[in-house]
Amino acid sequence: MVHAPSRPPAGAPPVRINLYSDTQTLPTPAMKDAMMRAELGDEQHGDDPTVHALTDRMAALLGKEAAMFLPSGTMCNVIAILTHCRKGDEVLAHETAHILSSEGGTHAALTGAQIYPLKGARGLFTPETLRAAIRPRTRYAPPQRLLEVEQTANIGGGIVWPLEQLNAVADIAHGQGWATHMDGARLMNACVAAGIPASEMVAQYDSVWLDFTKGLGAPLGAVLAGSSEFIGEAWRWKQRLGGSMRQAGIVAAACLYSLDNNIDRLADDHANAKALARGLAQIEGFKVEAPETNLVFFDTTGAGFTAEQLSAALRMEGIMISGLGGRLRACTHLNVTAPMIEDALTAIRGIVARGH
Amino acid sequence: MVHAPSRPPAGAPPVRINLYSDTQTLPTPAMKDAMMRAELGDEQHGDDPTVHALTDRMAALLGKEAAMFLPSGTMCNVIAILTHCRKGDEVLAHETAHILSSEGGTHAALTGAQIYPLKGARGLFTPETLRAAIRPRTRYAPPQRLLEVEQTANIGGGIVWPLEQLNAVADIAHGQGWATHMDGARLMNACVAAGIPASEMVAQYDSVWLDFTKGLGAPLGAVLAGSSEFIGEAWRWKQRLGGSMRQAGIVAAACLYSLDNNIDRLADDHANAKALARGLAQIEGFKVEAPETNLVFFDTTGAGFTAEQLSAALRMEGIMISGLGGRLRACTHLNVTAPMIEDALTAIRGIVARGH
Amino acid sequence: MVHAPSRPPAGAPPVRINLYSDTQTLPTPAMKDAMMRAELGDEQHGDDPTVHALTDRMAALLGKEAAMFLPSGTMCNVIAILTHCRKGDEVLAHETAHILSSEGGTHAALTGAQIYPLKGARGLFTPETLRAAIRPRTRYAPPQRLLEVEQTANIGGGIVWPLEQLNAVADIAHGQGWATHMDGARLMNACVAAGIPASEMVAQYDSVWLDFTKGLGAPLGAVLAGSSEFIGEAWRWKQRLGGSMRQAGIVAAACLYSLDNNIDRLADDHANAKALARGLAQIEGFKVEAPETNLVFFDTTGAGFTAEQLSAALRMEGIMISGLGGRLRACTHLNVTAPMIEDALTAIRGIVARGH
Amino acid sequence: MVHAPSRPPAGAPPVRINLYSDTQTLPTPAMKDAMMRAELGDEQHGDDPTVHALTDRMAALLGKEAAMFLPSGTMCNVIAILTHCRKGDEVLAHETAHILSSEGGTHAALTGAQIYPLKGARGLFTPETLRAAIRPRTRYAPPQRLLEVEQTANIGGGIVWPLEQLNAVADIAHGQGWATHMDGARLMNACVAAGIPASEMVAQYDSVWLDFTKGLGAPLGAVLAGSSEFIGEAWRWKQRLGGSMRQAGIVAAACLYSLDNNIDRLADDHANAKALARGLAQIEGFKVEAPETNLVFFDTTGAGFTAEQLSAALRMEGIMISGLGGRLRACTHLNVTAPMIEDALTAIRGIVARGH
Repeated sequence: MVHAPSRPPAGAPPVRINLYSDTQTLPTPAMKDAMMRAELGDEQHGDDPTVHALTDRMAALLGKEAAMFLPSGTMCNVIAILTHCRKGDEVLAHETAHILSSEGGTHAALTGAQIYPLKGARGLFTPETLRAAIRPRTRYAPPQRLLEVEQTANIGGGIVWPLEQLNAVADIAHGQGWATHMDGARLMNACVAAGIPASEMVAQYDSVWLDFTKGLGAPLGAVLAGSSEFIGEAWRWKQRLGGSMRQAGIVAAACLYSLDNNIDRLADDHANAKALARGLAQIEGFKVEAPETNLVFFDTTGAGFTAEQLSAALRMEGIMISGLGGRLRACTHLNVTAPMIEDALTAIRGIVARGH
Repeated sequence: MVHAPSRPPAGAPPVRINLYSDTQTLPTPAMKDAMMRAELGDEQHGDDPTVHALTDRMAALLGKEAAMFLPSGTMCNVIAILTHCRKGDEVLAHETAHILSSEGGTHAALTGAQIYPLKGARGLFTPETLRAAIRPRTRYAPPQRLLEVEQTANIGGGIVWPLEQLNAVADIAHGQGWATHMDGARLMNACVAAGIPASEMVAQYDSVWLDFTKGLGAPLGAVLAGSSEFIGEAWRWKQRLGGSMRQAGIVAAACLYSLDNNIDRLADDHANAKALARGLAQIEGFKVEAPETNLVFFDTTGAGFTAEQLSAALRMEGIMISGLGGRLRACTHLNVTAPMIEDALTAIRGIVARGH
Repeated sequence: MVHAPSRPPAGAPPVRINLYSDTQTLPTPAMKDAMMRAELGDEQHGDDPTVHALTDRMAALLGKEAAMFLPSGTMCNVIAILTHCRKGDEVLAHETAHILSSEGGTHAALTGAQIYPLKGARGLFTPETLRAAIRPRTRYAPPQRLLEVEQTANIGGGIVWPLEQLNAVADIAHGQGWATHMDGARLMNACVAAGIPASEMVAQYDSVWLDFTKGLGAPLGAVLAGSSEFIGEAWRWKQRLGGSMRQAGIVAAACLYSLDNNIDRLADDHANAKALARGLAQIEGFKVEAPETNLVFFDTTGAGFTAEQLSAALRMEGIMISGLGGRLRACTHLNVTAPMIEDALTAIRGIVARGH
Repeated sequence: MVHAPSRPPAGAPPVRINLYSDTQTLPTPAMKDAMMRAELGDEQHGDDPTVHALTDRMAALLGKEAAMFLPSGTMCNVIAILTHCRKGDEVLAHETAHILSSEGGTHAALTGAQIYPLKGARGLFTPETLRAAIRPRTRYAPPQRLLEVEQTANIGGGIVWPLEQLNAVADIAHGQGWATHMDGARLMNACVAAGIPASEMVAQYDSVWLDFTKGLGAPLGAVLAGSSEFIGEAWRWKQRLGGSMRQAGIVAAACLYSLDNNIDRLADDHANAKALARGLAQIEGFKVEAPETNLVFFDTTGAGFTAEQLSAALRMEGIMISGLGGRLRACTHLNVTAPMIEDALTAIRGIVARGH
C-alpha cells in the first residue's frame, strides 16, 4: 500500500494538540448536519443548487462577477494560470510563493508558464522590487503576463499584505497590461486581522480564491472567482483537469456553513497565535517572528534544538507541529483552544529544560 | 453568474424520470448516514483512515498492489497517462473513447500524448486492428507506449469487452513493451453483466479505475489502481493537478457504502435497460441497439423524430434523456425503477403517435 | 556513433538513380556560386540582407504581409500551430497529413494541440467531410481553432488540391472563426501543375510555407508567411525552438537562386513522373496511382513483390526508391532525367521478369 | 515586413568596429572555400558525410560517445533538457543562465521543466550553494533531475569555471542521481584561457554543446554531444523541433574549418579583451570587471553615462557595443584587431571628455 508520506515515530501517543496545520480540522456535528440537509444535483452539468448558492455567495463576498467550486486550492492556482497565460508567458511571484515551493513544479509541467521569483521580507515585495523586475519586451524574454500575490503570505509568516501595498503592486501590473491573481488560501484571516472587507481587499485582483479547508474548517473545497469571461474560460480547464464533480453540493454545504459560522472566530486563532508567540519569546535562545494571523514561525537553534529535534520531542508528548526549512511553524485553528496553547508552552519549556 | 451549460426549455416540469445519466443519482439516507459516521483525517498527508479503507479495499477488489482516491474519473485518465507516458508518446484507443471525445483535448493540452484512434464496431477493436496500428520505430513516428480500453464502452453502447478479447489486445500491447490502461468508469456493470470478478476482468491491465458516481450512486469520487510504483508516481501528478484533498473520507465513506450495497443491484439496471430496449424496438421506425448493460442507444429518425426533437418532447413530460451525435441514449440506474420504464415507454409511444 | 537511421544492404553499389526523395538533391555549382557571393549579417538580429531579400520576395510571391526563414518545414508547421493555437485547441487535418504521420508526435508533445483526423480519397477531404467534423461548443470538446491542408498531398499521391475545393474548405473554416494553415512543402509543384499563381493558390490561407529542399533543390531552409502580426508572434517561437540563426544568408542565397531557376523546370519532373507511371502501368500485376505532380505511388503485390522486396532489389542495381506503408513511392526531381526514367523502368521490368 | 528587432539611430554610419557580439563574425573566403568543396548528403537520413565528419570529430574532441549537429545553441539546450528531464522535473542553474534569461521562457513552454535559480558571484555558484538547494524528496517539490552550468559564464563576465569547481558541483549532482549538462556556447574560450583540453574540461558533464557561430566564426550551427543513448533519444527531439536538416554539410564544413583554424587564435581575442579592459579602467568613473576571456563588462554610470547613452554615442562613430541590464558588454572576436581596440578606446575617451 502507498499511503502516507510520513509516519509518527514509534511509540508516539495520539495527537492531542494539533499545531501542524489548519488543514487538519475536523468538521463539527453542526457542519455535518448542514451537509446532510443540502439539496444536491450534478455539479458538472450546472445543476447543483448548493454549489450555486456557494459560488453566488462567494462572488458577492469577493465582489466578482462569477465563481467556481473546485476540489482544492492548488487546482485554483493551476486553473487561474492556465486561464490568464499562454504557454511561455511569465508569472511574477514572491520567491517563497506556494506556486513555486509547494505545487510540485506543476506550472512548468502543466501550465507552461515560467515563474519569476521576487525577493522581499516576510513573503511581501515592494513596488520598487516589482518595477525592477519588468523585462524589456524582446524575443529573448518571456512575455510577462500575470502578477501573483499570496494573502496571507504563508512562508512569510502568515503576514498580511497591507491594502495600500497590495493595490500599489496591482497598479504596476495593470499599467503593464498584466493580469493580477491572488492566492487567498487564508484570505479571510487577512481580512479579519486587518478589519477590511474581502471585496475591498481583492478589488484590484482579477482573480482570487479562498480555501475552505484551512481556518474555515470545511473538509474539502475552494472557490475561485473572477469575471464571467474568466470563469467561463476557467471551466474548460476545470473539465480538462478532472475538477468537475457530481453531487458536490454535499461538500459545498460545509463551505456555506463555514461562511456563516467560522469567519469571525478567526480572531480567536489570531489571539491564540499571539499568546503562543509571547510565551515562546520568553524561552531563552528562541527567536520568534511576530505573528499577524494564525501562523507562528520560530527558530530554536539558539536553544540547542533543531526544528526536527523539537518537533519530534513534542510529537512524543502528543503535540504536532511542523518544520519548514529550518524553522518551526505553529498554526492555530478551530481545534486549538487557549488552554491548549498554555499546555503546549509548558511542554516546550519542559523539553528545553531537560535538553536532549 | 456562469452556471449551467444548458437549461431546460421554458415551461418544462420538474424531472420525474431521469434517464439522462447514471451520474445524476442522489445519495440515499443510508449512504449519507455512513458518510456522517466516517472517521476522518488529512487525505493529502496520508492520514484519512476512511480513504485508506476505500483504497485498500479497491486494490483488493481489482487485484492490484495499490490504489488512490481522486475527485473524478477524468482525473484518473489524465493521471494514468501522465504516469505511463512521456510527452510525445502515443496512446492507442478506440476512436470513440472518452479520452478523445469528452475530455476537452486534455491529453494534448496537459499530458503531451498523441492518441491514435482505432476503429471497430460498438466501441471495441479487434486484435487485428490493433496489430495493424503498430508503427515502425523511426524518428518520424511517436513512440507508442500505452493501450487504453473502456469497459464498458460508453459511446459504443455500454458494450462489454469479452474477457478473451480484452486479454488478446493486452497481450499484443505487452508484447510491444507498452503498458495497458483501463477506463473502468462502468467496470462493475461489465463485471455484473459478464459474471466475471473484477480482479479477473482487469488482470492484464496495468492500471484501471472505477467511477463511484455512476451506477454505484456515490456523490463524488473515483479510485485509480495499479502497482505500488505506479501509484507512487501517480501521487506526484495528483498533487500537481490539485487532486489531493483534505478530509476526503467524508465522501470516500459513500464509496465504501456503495461497494457494500450497490453492486449486485446493477443487474436490475441491466434488466430495466433490456425492458426499455424491447419496448422501443416495437415502435415503428425506431432502430434500437441491443443493450448489454445499463445504456440503451436508439435512432428515431425512421419515425420522423430527430434526437433533439424527441428528447425535448420528453423533457416537457418530465422525462430526461440525452442525445449523443444523432442517437438517443437512455441510461438506467438506482433512481430508475421498472414502473418508470413502462411510464417512459408510454410517454414515448404517445409522442410518436401525436407526431409533432 | 549514432548516425544513420538506415543503411544500404551489404554489397549495394553507389546510388546512380535517386527516386527516393526530392529532399536529396545536391546544390549545383551555379547555386553554390550564388551562396558564396551572398551579403551576410546576423539573421537573429534582423541584420542579414540576403535573408531579408528572400523573405520579402516570398511574402510577395505568396501575397502575404510578412515571412520568416526557418531551418526546416517541420519547424514551419510547429511554429504555425504554436502561433495559431492555445494548448488544448484542436486542429483539423487529413488523416494522412505530415503533421500526424511524420513529425514524431510533436504537436501533442510541444504545441499542446489535438489533431482531428479527416478522411478522404488521395489526401483530400470534401467540404461535407469538414462540415461533419465541426464539434458542438461544449466544455467536453476541445475548441476547434485551425484548418490545415497539405498542398500537394504527399501520402495522397502528390495530389493537387483543386483551387475551388481549397477555397471551399477555407470558407467553412473562416465561417467557424478558425484560422487556416497550408503545409506547402511542395506548393510550387501544385502551382506549376495547375497553372495557378502561388498568391492565388494560397489566398484563403492565413499562413503558408514553402520548402526549398524538395523540388527547388536548395540544401537547407523553408519560409513561413502570413500577416505581420502572425509573423511577429511566430518570431517568439522561432527563438524558443532554437530556429533563429546567425549568417543564414549563406543558405538563403540558395533559396533565392532556386526561385529564379528551379520553378519552371518542375514541369519536367511532372512529365518524368507521368512517363514513369505509364511504364509501370504496363507491367503485369502493378497498380499505379495516376500522378499529378512529381510523386508516383504504386503497388507491386499483384506481381508477387512486396514494396520492401522490390526496393531492395532496385537498390542492388543502384536505384533508390522508398516504401511507404505497403506502397512504393518514386519521386522525380532535378537530379532525375528522362533517360534515367527509362533506365529505371528497364531495371524494374528485369527484376519482375527474373522473379525472386 | 517584420525584420529587425532593433535598428541603428538615424544618421548612424556603417559599423566599422563590432564589439557587439562574436555571433556577428562573417565567414572568410577560406572558410567559404571549404564550404563549397564539402561532400553533401541528406543529413536527416544520416547520409551527409561532412556532418558525420564534424560530429565524429566533436565527439572525439569532447570525449563523448556521440554528437549531433543542430542549427543553434538554443536548440542544443532545449533538446538536452527535453532528453534529460520529464515534464515537472527541476533543473538547477545559475540565476543569470542563458536558459533563464535569453530563451524566451522556452523551458516552461516546451520542456515542462522548472529552473531553480542559484546565486553566486560572476555567474558561478559554489558547491555549498548547490548543496543548500537540494530539495527534500516530497510530493510537494518537483523532482530535481539536472545540473546545468555555462562555460564560460556569459552574463557573469565571460568567466571561466575552474575545473575543480566544475567537477565539485558535478560530483554533488551525480551523488544525487542527477544528470549534468554544460552550455558550452563559448567552451573553447574557456579551454584556451585555462590551458585545459576540452575533453578534460567536460569529463564530468553528461551532455555538452559548443557553438560555432561565436568565437569560432562559422555562419551557422552548434554540436551537442553525449552518450550514444542520449544522442539517440535526442534525435527524436531534433526531429520534433524541426532541427533535422537536409544538405547541412555545406554549413558543417565551415564548422570543421573553424576547428582547424580558429581555436588557437582565441588567445588573441582574450589579449584584446584584456587590453580593452586596461584602457577602460583608466577612464575616471568607469568600473571594469576583470575579463578572463573575450567579454569585457563595465559600468560607466560613475562617469555620468548610462549604458544606453554611451552605446548610442559610440554607434554614431561606427562602433557597436551592447548594453545588458545597466552594464556595457564589449566582445572581442576574429573581426576585431588590436588596433581597433585602441581606436575604440580613443573614441570612448573622446565621448567621455565631451560629455553629452
